[in-house]
Amino acid sequence: MIAPTGSLSADVPERLDDERVDELVSAHGLRVERIVSTGQASPPGFWYDQNWSEWVMVLSGSAGLRFEGEAEPRRLGPGDYVTIPPHARHRVEWTDPARPTVWLAVYVRSEPEAG
Amino acid sequence: MIAPTGSLSADVPERLDDERVDELVSAHGLRVERIVSTGQASPPGFWYDQNWSEWVMVLSGSAGLRFEGEAEPRRLGPGDYVTIPPHARHRVEWTDPARPTVWLAVYVRSEPEAG
Repeated sequence: MIAPTGSLSADVPERLDDERVDELVSAHGLRVERIVSTGQASPPGFWYDQNWSEWVMVLSGSAGLRFEGEAEPRRLGPGDYVTIPPHARHRVEWTDPARPTVWLAVYVRSEPEAG
Repeated sequence: MIAPTGSLSADVPERLDDERVDELVSAHGLRVERIVSTGQASPPGFWYDQNWSEWVMVLSGSAGLRFEGEAEPRRLGPGDYVTIPPHARHRVEWTDPARPTVWLAVYVRSEPEAG
Protein backbone atom coordinates (compact mmCIF):
# COMPACT_ATOMS: atom_id res chain seq x y z
CA MET A 1 0.00 0.00 0.00
CA ILE A 2 1.57 3.28 -1.01
CA ALA A 3 -0.08 5.35 1.71
CA PRO A 4 -0.28 3.65 5.12
CA THR A 5 -3.54 4.20 6.99
CA GLY A 6 -4.28 3.84 10.69
CA SER A 7 -6.45 5.04 13.52
CA LEU A 8 -5.45 7.12 16.51
CA SER A 9 -8.34 5.53 18.40
CA ALA A 10 -6.93 2.02 18.03
CA ASP A 11 -5.39 0.22 21.01
CA VAL A 12 -5.70 2.99 23.57
CA PRO A 13 -4.80 1.29 26.85
CA GLU A 14 -6.79 2.23 29.94
CA ARG A 15 -3.98 1.98 32.44
CA LEU A 16 -0.22 2.10 31.97
CA ASP A 17 2.84 2.10 34.18
CA ASP A 18 4.58 4.40 31.72
CA GLU A 19 3.39 6.55 28.87
CA ARG A 20 2.96 4.71 25.60
CA VAL A 21 4.49 6.23 22.47
CA ASP A 22 3.61 5.03 18.96
CA GLU A 23 5.54 6.48 16.05
CA LEU A 24 3.13 7.13 13.18
CA VAL A 25 5.52 8.51 10.62
CA SER A 26 9.17 9.48 10.45
CA ALA A 27 10.65 11.00 7.32
CA HIS A 28 12.56 14.00 6.09
CA GLY A 29 13.15 15.53 9.50
CA LEU A 30 9.51 15.04 10.56
CA ARG A 31 8.23 12.69 13.23
CA VAL A 32 4.60 12.23 14.24
CA GLU A 33 3.79 10.32 17.40
CA ARG A 34 0.72 9.31 19.32
CA ILE A 35 1.33 9.44 23.06
CA VAL A 36 -1.04 7.93 25.61
CA SER A 37 -0.77 9.10 29.23
CA THR A 38 -2.79 7.69 32.10
CA GLY A 39 -2.04 10.09 34.91
CA GLN A 40 1.71 10.40 34.31
CA ALA A 41 3.51 13.71 34.75
CA SER A 42 7.07 14.92 34.36
CA PRO A 43 9.26 14.10 37.37
CA PRO A 44 9.63 16.91 39.93
CA GLY A 45 12.13 19.49 38.73
CA PHE A 46 12.36 17.99 35.23
CA TRP A 47 12.06 20.31 32.20
CA TYR A 48 12.03 19.38 28.55
CA ASP A 49 14.62 21.45 26.67
CA GLN A 50 14.49 20.35 23.03
CA ASN A 51 16.54 21.49 20.08
CA TRP A 52 13.64 20.85 17.72
CA SER A 53 10.21 22.37 17.18
CA GLU A 54 7.18 20.56 18.52
CA TRP A 55 3.51 20.97 17.72
CA VAL A 56 1.34 19.03 20.12
CA MET A 57 -2.39 18.63 20.61
CA VAL A 58 -4.66 16.75 22.98
CA LEU A 59 -7.14 14.48 21.19
CA SER A 60 -8.89 13.17 24.30
CA GLY A 61 -8.47 13.50 28.03
CA SER A 62 -6.71 16.54 29.47
CA ALA A 63 -3.33 17.73 30.68
CA GLY A 64 -1.53 20.62 32.33
CA LEU A 65 1.47 21.89 30.36
CA ARG A 66 3.70 24.36 32.13
CA PHE A 67 6.28 26.64 30.58
CA GLU A 68 9.24 27.99 32.50
CA GLY A 69 8.48 31.52 33.62
CA GLU A 70 4.71 30.97 33.69
CA ALA A 71 3.06 30.74 37.09
CA GLU A 72 0.40 28.21 36.17
CA PRO A 73 0.22 25.27 33.78
CA ARG A 74 -1.95 25.72 30.71
CA ARG A 75 -4.90 23.38 30.70
CA LEU A 76 -5.24 21.44 27.43
CA GLY A 77 -8.43 19.57 26.52
CA PRO A 78 -9.62 17.88 23.33
CA GLY A 79 -8.69 19.94 20.28
CA ASP A 80 -6.27 22.23 22.13
CA TYR A 81 -2.80 22.59 20.68
CA VAL A 82 0.45 24.34 21.48
CA THR A 83 3.44 25.20 19.30
CA ILE A 84 6.63 24.73 21.31
CA PRO A 85 9.69 26.48 19.87
CA PRO A 86 13.13 24.93 20.32
CA HIS A 87 14.50 25.43 23.83
CA ALA A 88 11.19 26.62 25.29
CA ARG A 89 11.52 24.77 28.58
CA HIS A 90 8.32 23.03 29.57
CA ARG A 91 6.98 20.13 31.61
CA VAL A 92 3.80 18.12 31.99
CA GLU A 93 2.40 19.00 35.40
CA TRP A 94 -0.44 16.51 35.26
CA THR A 95 -2.54 14.32 33.01
CA ASP A 96 -6.09 13.16 33.63
CA PRO A 97 -5.95 10.45 36.32
CA ALA A 98 -9.37 9.04 35.45
CA ARG A 99 -9.08 8.34 31.72
CA PRO A 100 -6.43 8.10 29.01
CA THR A 101 -5.06 11.32 27.58
CA VAL A 102 -4.21 10.88 23.90
CA TRP A 103 -1.70 13.35 22.46
CA LEU A 104 -0.65 13.92 18.89
CA ALA A 105 2.88 15.28 18.71
CA VAL A 106 4.65 16.53 15.61
CA TYR A 107 8.40 17.08 15.86
CA VAL A 108 10.46 18.80 13.24
CA ARG A 109 14.20 18.98 13.04
CA SER A 110 15.56 22.50 13.31
CA GLU A 111 17.68 24.05 10.64
CA PRO A 112 21.38 23.88 11.44
CA GLU A 113 22.27 26.88 13.54
CA ALA A 114 24.70 29.42 12.12
CA GLY A 115 28.11 28.93 13.65
CA MET B 1 3.60 34.25 24.85
CA ILE B 2 6.45 32.00 23.83
CA ALA B 3 4.28 29.04 22.87
CA PRO B 4 1.06 29.96 21.03
CA THR B 5 -2.00 27.97 22.07
CA GLY B 6 -5.27 27.42 20.20
CA SER B 7 -8.17 25.07 19.70
CA LEU B 8 -9.01 23.03 16.63
CA SER B 9 -12.63 23.13 17.74
CA ALA B 10 -12.82 26.92 17.53
CA ASP B 11 -14.72 28.63 14.74
CA VAL B 12 -15.77 25.56 12.80
CA PRO B 13 -18.24 26.89 10.24
CA GLU B 14 -21.32 24.81 9.48
CA ARG B 15 -21.59 25.64 5.80
CA LEU B 16 -19.02 26.96 3.36
CA ASP B 17 -18.82 27.67 -0.33
CA ASP B 18 -15.19 26.61 -0.34
CA GLU B 19 -13.04 24.69 2.06
CA ARG B 20 -11.56 26.75 4.87
CA VAL B 21 -7.87 26.44 5.59
CA ASP B 22 -6.24 27.80 8.75
CA GLU B 23 -2.49 27.63 9.05
CA LEU B 24 -1.58 26.63 12.60
CA VAL B 25 2.17 26.66 12.35
CA SER B 26 4.78 27.11 9.64
CA ALA B 27 8.47 26.76 10.40
CA HIS B 28 11.57 24.89 9.35
CA GLY B 29 9.98 23.13 6.39
CA LEU B 30 6.91 22.11 8.42
CA ARG B 31 3.38 23.35 7.95
CA VAL B 32 0.35 22.32 9.99
CA GLU B 33 -3.11 23.25 8.77
CA ARG B 34 -6.65 22.76 9.91
CA ILE B 35 -8.97 22.24 6.97
CA VAL B 36 -12.76 22.36 7.24
CA SER B 37 -14.81 20.79 4.45
CA THR B 38 -18.60 20.89 4.23
CA GLY B 39 -19.33 18.48 1.41
CA GLN B 40 -16.61 19.65 -0.96
CA ALA B 41 -14.68 17.18 -3.12
CA SER B 42 -11.87 17.41 -5.64
CA PRO B 43 -13.07 18.46 -9.11
CA PRO B 44 -13.70 15.59 -11.55
CA GLY B 45 -10.44 14.34 -13.01
CA PHE B 46 -8.31 16.36 -10.58
CA TRP B 47 -5.44 14.62 -8.74
CA TYR B 48 -3.14 16.07 -6.13
CA ASP B 49 0.49 15.41 -7.10
CA GLN B 50 2.66 16.97 -4.40
CA ASN B 51 6.42 17.14 -4.13
CA TRP B 52 6.21 17.09 -0.33
CA SER B 53 5.14 14.54 2.27
CA GLU B 54 1.74 14.88 3.89
CA TRP B 55 0.32 13.31 7.03
CA VAL B 56 -3.39 13.93 7.32
CA MET B 57 -6.07 12.87 9.77
CA VAL B 58 -9.79 13.39 10.16
CA LEU B 59 -10.75 14.88 13.53
CA SER B 60 -14.51 14.95 12.95
CA GLY B 61 -16.87 14.18 10.10
CA SER B 62 -15.79 11.77 7.36
CA ALA B 63 -14.26 11.71 3.90
CA GLY B 64 -13.37 9.42 1.00
CA LEU B 65 -9.74 9.67 -0.07
CA ARG B 66 -8.82 7.90 -3.28
CA PHE B 67 -5.36 7.00 -4.49
CA GLU B 68 -4.56 6.50 -8.15
CA GLY B 69 -4.54 2.80 -8.92
CA GLU B 70 -6.99 1.94 -6.14
CA ALA B 71 -10.50 0.99 -7.16
CA GLU B 72 -12.30 2.52 -4.20
CA PRO B 73 -11.73 5.55 -1.99
CA ARG B 74 -10.60 4.87 1.57
CA ARG B 75 -13.17 5.96 4.12
CA LEU B 76 -11.68 8.15 6.85
CA GLY B 77 -13.57 8.88 10.06
CA PRO B 78 -12.54 10.52 13.34
CA GLY B 79 -9.03 9.46 14.37
CA ASP B 80 -8.14 7.92 11.00
CA TYR B 81 -4.93 9.07 9.38
CA VAL B 82 -2.98 8.52 6.18
CA THR B 83 0.66 9.16 5.32
CA ILE B 84 0.89 10.40 1.74
CA PRO B 85 4.36 10.15 0.18
CA PRO B 86 5.49 12.73 -2.37
CA HIS B 87 3.91 12.18 -5.77
CA ALA B 88 1.35 9.66 -4.54
CA ARG B 89 -1.51 10.93 -6.68
CA HIS B 90 -4.74 11.23 -4.72
CA ARG B 91 -8.05 13.04 -4.62
CA VAL B 92 -10.90 13.69 -2.22
CA GLU B 93 -13.89 11.83 -3.62
CA TRP B 94 -16.34 13.11 -1.05
CA THR B 95 -16.71 14.73 2.34
CA ASP B 96 -19.66 14.41 4.69
CA PRO B 97 -22.52 16.53 3.26
CA ALA B 98 -24.39 16.73 6.57
CA ARG B 99 -21.75 18.08 8.95
CA PRO B 100 -18.32 19.71 8.86
CA THR B 101 -15.33 17.48 8.29
CA VAL B 102 -12.31 18.79 10.20
CA TRP B 103 -8.90 17.65 8.92
CA LEU B 104 -5.49 18.11 10.43
CA ALA B 105 -2.81 18.16 7.75
CA VAL B 106 0.94 18.17 8.33
CA TYR B 107 3.14 18.96 5.34
CA VAL B 108 6.86 18.56 5.30
CA ARG B 109 9.28 19.75 2.70
CA SER B 110 11.13 16.96 0.97
CA GLU B 111 14.88 16.71 0.93
CA PRO B 112 16.39 18.10 -2.26
CA GLU B 113 16.43 15.32 -4.83
CA ALA B 114 19.75 14.12 -6.13
CA GLY B 115 20.38 15.51 -9.61
